[in-house]
Amino acid sequence: MKEILKGHIVHAPALGQLEIIEDGYLVLEDGVIAGIYSQLPGEHADGKMHDYGDRLILQSFADMHLHAPQYPMLGMGMDLPLLDWLDTYTFPVEARFADTEYARRVYRRLANELITNGTTRVCMFSSLHTDATWVLMEELEKAGVTGFVGKVNMDRNGKEGVYQETTEESVSETLRWLEGCHFDHVKPIITPRFTPTCSDELMAQLGKIAAEKGLYVQSHLSENRAEMAWVLELHPDCKQYWESYHKFGQWKDHTVMAHCVHSDASERRAMREHNVVVAHCADSNINISSGVCPVRQMLDEGIWVTLGSDIAGGQQLPMYRVITTTIRSSKVRQMMDDWKTPFLTVPEGYYLGTTAGHKYFGGGFAVGDALHAVVVDDGNFTESTRPLSINERFERALYMMEQRNIISVWSAGRCVVGR
Amino acid sequence: MKEILKGHIVHAPALGQLEIIEDGYLVLEDGVIAGIYSQLPGEHADGKMHDYGDRLILQSFADMHLHAPQYPMLGMGMDLPLLDWLDTYTFPVEARFADTEYARRVYRRLANELITNGTTRVCMFSSLHTDATWVLMEELEKAGVTGFVGKVNMDRNGKEGVYQETTEESVSETLRWLEGCHFDHVKPIITPRFTPTCSDELMAQLGKIAAEKGLYVQSHLSENRAEMAWVLELHPDCKQYWESYHKFGQWKDHTVMAHCVHSDASERRAMREHNVVVAHCADSNINISSGVCPVRQMLDEGIWVTLGSDIAGGQQLPMYRVITTTIRSSKVRQMMDDWKTPFLTVPEGYYLGTTAGHKYFGGGFAVGDALHAVVVDDGNFTESTRPLSINERFERALYMMEQRNIISVWSAGRCVVGR
Repeated sequence: MKEILKGHIVHAPALGQLEIIEDGYLVLEDGVIAGIYSQLPGEHADGKMHDYGDRLILQSFADMHLHAPQYPMLGMGMDLPLLDWLDTYTFPVEARFADTEYARRVYRRLANELITNGTTRVCMFSSLHTDATWVLMEELEKAGVTGFVGKVNMDRNGKEGVYQETTEESVSETLRWLEGCHFDHVKPIITPRFTPTCSDELMAQLGKIAAEKGLYVQSHLSENRAEMAWVLELHPDCKQYWESYHKFGQWKDHTVMAHCVHSDASERRAMREHNVVVAHCADSNINISSGVCPVRQMLDEGIWVTLGSDIAGGQQLPMYRVITTTIRSSKVRQMMDDWKTPFLTVPEGYYLGTTAGHKYFGGGFAVGDALHAVVVDDGNFTESTRPLSINERFERALYMMEQRNIISVWSAGRCVVGR
Repeated sequence: MKEILKGHIVHAPALGQLEIIEDGYLVLEDGVIAGIYSQLPGEHADGKMHDYGDRLILQSFADMHLHAPQYPMLGMGMDLPLLDWLDTYTFPVEARFADTEYARRVYRRLANELITNGTTRVCMFSSLHTDATWVLMEELEKAGVTGFVGKVNMDRNGKEGVYQETTEESVSETLRWLEGCHFDHVKPIITPRFTPTCSDELMAQLGKIAAEKGLYVQSHLSENRAEMAWVLELHPDCKQYWESYHKFGQWKDHTVMAHCVHSDASERRAMREHNVVVAHCADSNINISSGVCPVRQMLDEGIWVTLGSDIAGGQQLPMYRVITTTIRSSKVRQMMDDWKTPFLTVPEGYYLGTTAGHKYFGGGFAVGDALHAVVVDDGNFTESTRPLSINERFERALYMMEQRNIISVWSAGRCVVGR
């Protein structure tokens, strides 16, 4: 089936680049981009037209790190130190997802909030619960959110009796979960919570499962200094945090590591050499007082950086807001670096929140890629003093848009919002 | 007329204090708070009841620094250095307000967005234009926003021929403007844009007018280092920026100075000694790469700190979001200070965005004060895992609320939204 989207098309093909096709035509063949044109070629005149008029057609967003079961605790406990926050909020809240009916209600709403805000691809943590994780995957699938979800593994340093597995349970439940994952657009990813909550035995088993089944891995890395010291205490044979994943076969191509705020040059080199992906979470890093990640430096070194909302360490789900927060965070980093590192520009921030993430799933915004896009109606913004360029409207939309401005969302080639 | 508001009442009587009256009663006599009670005293049983049920009744917000004519450029030019940003956006955009019909449309919308987001008191910059400034004051008055508005003065270093006055015009227009200010809830304030844009002659005249007419003054101070150096070049007789206001009689009780990011101990002492008010603008300071204001230090020194959205240097108008940004900014400051200065807690941030500002206008949330309040319906937030305390609901509301959650706004004792 041939479809055509007409409007002002904006996407970021590479870091710092913005491609704008004013009054452009995006031709889809069975959901896959067949071409983007300023003038519609005659051969495509027979396609089904979606005329979005004066609106902006933007590549949609990819949220590369968030905790689905922390959605109910958004905006709470922000004054607490990390460990109290985990103990008072995170673990008891996540434990609640043993109840699949509760999980169904919360995850349906989460999936809806993600997709209506234009997040069409995610790399997401669930809870320890196999059943609730299936519920989450099902709700994402139904809403049109695609990507990876991981049942979390944790056999130590959780909350015993409340929220922790035995090593055996963790492994057997992971295997049971993997067997039950039959979704078209939502796939499993191996998810040790982080080194301190997983015994060596569990880490070894998870590495083995990932290798045998050809699965990616996601976890946390070097979020704060106390955590880093703790990891080295637990693994005296490791010189750096990353090695605690590496020695169990989990530090490999496409492993997603959230935060990496304090990763030094040597740890960053290990990322680049193994094609490990950084999920930078600007809001969370400031809310929980972790630090300010040196994103510019990582990019200069050729490291693959993506963005995550990291709810509920982050306080907001919409990735357009996470992008502008990321830009502000890079300005803070610039100040901290004595103005030596340039801040992230709007096109750069947008690239990190879109293309850099979409790449993880093997897609982009080029011919041959399944379409992931949002259509933004900026008509209700304040009346400007003069006609604005598409570039200006794009920047303003990133800073100003709200859910209601997103009138249509395309995910994996399908129109899933505003049908 | 006696009225009673029933609901969960939350306000911040002092820095770091939060007073919560669960299922409380707030008794108003002709718009003035007569008492706040856990049980309604029998003598007040005859009042007209506004039963807000399970909702939160919070003190409303005060925005102590914003530029009304920059409202149309929200979210634009954020990658530009300050001077390019002024030249490309700010000055041409403000110049457009020579057209009072345009001003009417934009200011009506601004006033509506302020009041529906719970900002009931402002200290605001208009443009150079006398007529548009009256329009602004009229629209604020109509919407129920109260406070101070200043016609801006600028007779040098603007954009000649586009946006600048002669000294004579600036003075005569200021006098004409003051004569035409007959509003009940919106009062004039003397507003030199900042030292570099005002000649000595103009500054002297403005200081004289302020003294003769008993008016307050607002301006900008020590926002960035280049600006500070420029001021000292223009005023070789001054050792510090603040003296350039002081020598013209403008550095005095209730003078509001926006930013003060780089004010040193000596400038800060001058603030405290003269009861000068800091309008801290966390968003703007980061967006324009000014720096991160040492708010905790100012508070410890006994300086009067309030908050401003500073649109369009700031990208958002809702003060509940400005408050949480301010908290995040204080966490950044903590990192920059090697963890020596504690961050601002939620009650502290809320105090700065409410009580600290309301005080400026002679009011608060105590018996004898005209009521300034918002009623927040948090019923559409994500289902929590357990019943939440009012304190938790308050914190979550600050972080999560949107315009639609504010179902009623009271300003100067009148219900102006949700009547």
